[in-house]
Amino acid sequence: VSGDSDVGSVLAGDPGFGPANLPYGVFSVGQSARRVGIALGDSVLDLAAFTNDDVFARPSLNDFMSQGRERWRALRAQVQNALVNYPADILRSLVPRADVSLHLPVDVADFVDFFSSLEHATNAAAILRPGETPLQPNWRELPVGYHGRAGTVVVSGTDVVRPAGQLRGEHGARPSLAPTRALDVETELGFVVGVGSGHFTSVAADDFAEHVFGVVLLIDWSARDIQAFEYRPLGPFLAKSFATTISPWIVPLDALAHARVPAPQRDREPLPYLRETDSWSLDIDMALRLQGVEISHPNTASLYWTGAQQMAHMTVNGASLRTGDLFGSGTVSSFDAAAQGSLLEITSGGSRPLTLPDGETRDYLRDGDTVELEGSARGADGSTISLGTAVGRIIGAAV
Amino acid sequence: VSGDSDVGSVLAGDPGFGPANLPYGVFSVGQSARRVGIALGDSVLDLAAFTNDDVFARPSLNDFMSQGRERWRALRAQVQNALVNYPADILRSLVPRADVSLHLPVDVADFVDFFSSLEHATNAAAILRPGETPLQPNWRELPVGYHGRAGTVVVSGTDVVRPAGQLRGEHGARPSLAPTRALDVETELGFVVGVGSGHFTSVAADDFAEHVFGVVLLIDWSARDIQAFEYRPLGPFLAKSFATTISPWIVPLDALAHARVPAPQRDREPLPYLRETDSWSLDIDMALRLQGVEISHPNTASLYWTGAQQMAHMTVNGASLRTGDLFGSGTVSSFDAAAQGSLLEITSGGSRPLTLPDGETRDYLRDGDTVELEGSARGADGSTISLGTAVGRIIGAAV
Repeated sequence: VSGDSDVGSVLAGDPGFGPANLPYGVFSVGQSARRVGIALGDSVLDLAAFTNDDVFARPSLNDFMSQGRERWRALRAQVQNALVNYPADILRSLVPRADVSLHLPVDVADFVDFFSSLEHATNAAAILRPGETPLQPNWRELPVGYHGRAGTVVVSGTDVVRPAGQLRGEHGARPSLAPTRALDVETELGFVVGVGSGHFTSVAADDFAEHVFGVVLLIDWSARDIQAFEYRPLGPFLAKSFATTISPWIVPLDALAHARVPAPQRDREPLPYLRETDSWSLDIDMALRLQGVEISHPNTASLYWTGAQQMAHMTVNGASLRTGDLFGSGTVSSFDAAAQGSLLEITSGGSRPLTLPDGETRDYLRDGDTVELEGSARGADGSTISLGTAVGRIIGAAV
Repeated sequence: VSGDSDVGSVLAGDPGFGPANLPYGVFSVGQSARRVGIALGDSVLDLAAFTNDDVFARPSLNDFMSQGRERWRALRAQVQNALVNYPADILRSLVPRADVSLHLPVDVADFVDFFSSLEHATNAAAILRPGETPLQPNWRELPVGYHGRAGTVVVSGTDVVRPAGQLRGEHGARPSLAPTRALDVETELGFVVGVGSGHFTSVAADDFAEHVFGVVLLIDWSARDIQAFEYRPLGPFLAKSFATTISPWIVPLDALAHARVPAPQRDREPLPYLRETDSWSLDIDMALRLQGVEISHPNTASLYWTGAQQMAHMTVNGASLRTGDLFGSGTVSSFDAAAQGSLLEITSGGSRPLTLPDGETRDYLRDGDTVELEGSARGADGSTISLGTAVGRIIGAAV
């Protein structure tokens, strides 16, 4: 068996992680220290071993990401070249994926969450504030967003404990502290910043790929009843801050070149600082599963505002970017219930419960439920780029 | 001249930084590396030199803070003991304050900003939303707050560039991108977390001093016109994220034992998780100055919710605390214009401009203005505990 055919069988083990993808993560084997690797077929390429560069012998990607796009591309080319010409170099640095534990790939600096799906904003408003104008006057002018809690971003596989919070009292009664009865998910794409920017400067939308290293899948866990009582006038706080789950593999922007699609139709031209020469709209298919059963398949191509526009907006006031910043697209959704990104929308606020194959019904999540968000896109040469999965299981609140 | 009398003259050089205070900061001298020190009179005690412990030879306080309250108290006792019994040990580790540069004392993890002054919330609502109910139903039940941007927290003395943002168009016109015309300050107290907490656990209000290391003065720069257009429904974002200034010296909670006062009158008992055995209401006098002229003197004793209640609320949903977390009290204010904490309130939204001694008037801040927030409290044995100052000068927006 030649080295080359061994690489072939590794790649065949999971075709979504082929040479056109090469996503980055942080792994460990047994009790060994965490280090940086690339998902390759059914294995992980140990980058510290492959390159002998100790920037990969670290427990997060931050130091490597801060080295910039030229370095990211050089490493990607080095791996792609070795796959073709020096497979033995690859093979001796591979670890089976089944043998590794995956960890949070970045030290998250600031976490921002946007609200950039027109369909989600419209659907949610119709359910939560029927009769009111669905979109605020700002919505079509700028990517509405808010800061979330960086310290509670967790990697896929981390159990999520049902949060408690103040729930509105009925008939004028005072609120009570109780576990949420309306635990939901929002299916999002997350952008990871590799290269920061100076304070009191703004970053142009067209410089997106100079700053953003790659994307992850992101589950924005949301307690609708906590949010309903707390959010006026300063926005969501405890309804979201208990946990945010991301997928373990950061797919580099270079892997998504073939997933770029024209921007969606907008009914007005954005202000100049929000214009892109070439749109960063991405055609990424998502699958949302509950207990392993697909309940929805959103696609990111419909998002009204792109990651590049979100980045430009976030910095137009002079706020700096830092290595490790994470920002979420907002719920990816649709006017079609089969492609909506939250139970709020899929069940119309609980009024149209979901029936699972075993006959159980759901409005919101129950203890023991397992939520899984998967993503994939078109890659070079007809390949598939897998974004992997973000998974979380709901655990009952501590008494 | 004995060693003892030399310490006396150092302390006499700035009595607010006496043995009852001992606040921590990060300093450098010339091109030397940053390290941790304590403000002592008109000098800085170089803790790496004084203790020979390399946890102080670091560019932030985070590692020391994470060691916990017992360690904080032991070091404080060691310095206080040396001041009395071994003054030569102190003297040989002192650097004149005039010779040092001061830096951001902590690596800020998450930044949360509360809204806990009843007077500020009432005043602001009356100006911004006249005719509406001033307080939402949540306000008296929980400390309303939101996450801010940790990456743009800066140390006192950092110039602040006037931010640009989308300003609402008049008569139905579209918004335009322009430098804010309503740049304001909010005078706050900031709490710095030393010891983190586990994810998916809550922290009791009475454990405040086990987790919170100390306090700083905090200027929450605010662009009122950017906020007015962007904030619905997810809260303030770019209106606040361009900069937050903190004072360089973190005053330990132990220095504030004599500043604790009874909680303000509340018209209802808080839910059990928000009750404190002994209130962490603090009597801290603030002075807000513009061009060196005092324009207001808020006091923190009137805050409706204490730092301990804010911490308990922030974690009741299972969100963890991390070393370096910073949370702001919200604007400290009053129904009396002489003690209000924002220009919005002091000038009634610009309708009652402020006249400075040189005859100039202000609604909001102009380029070149210098804002200074000073704070002090009562310490042990009749001493004064200075919180130092947080200063920022406004620079015109880049063209």
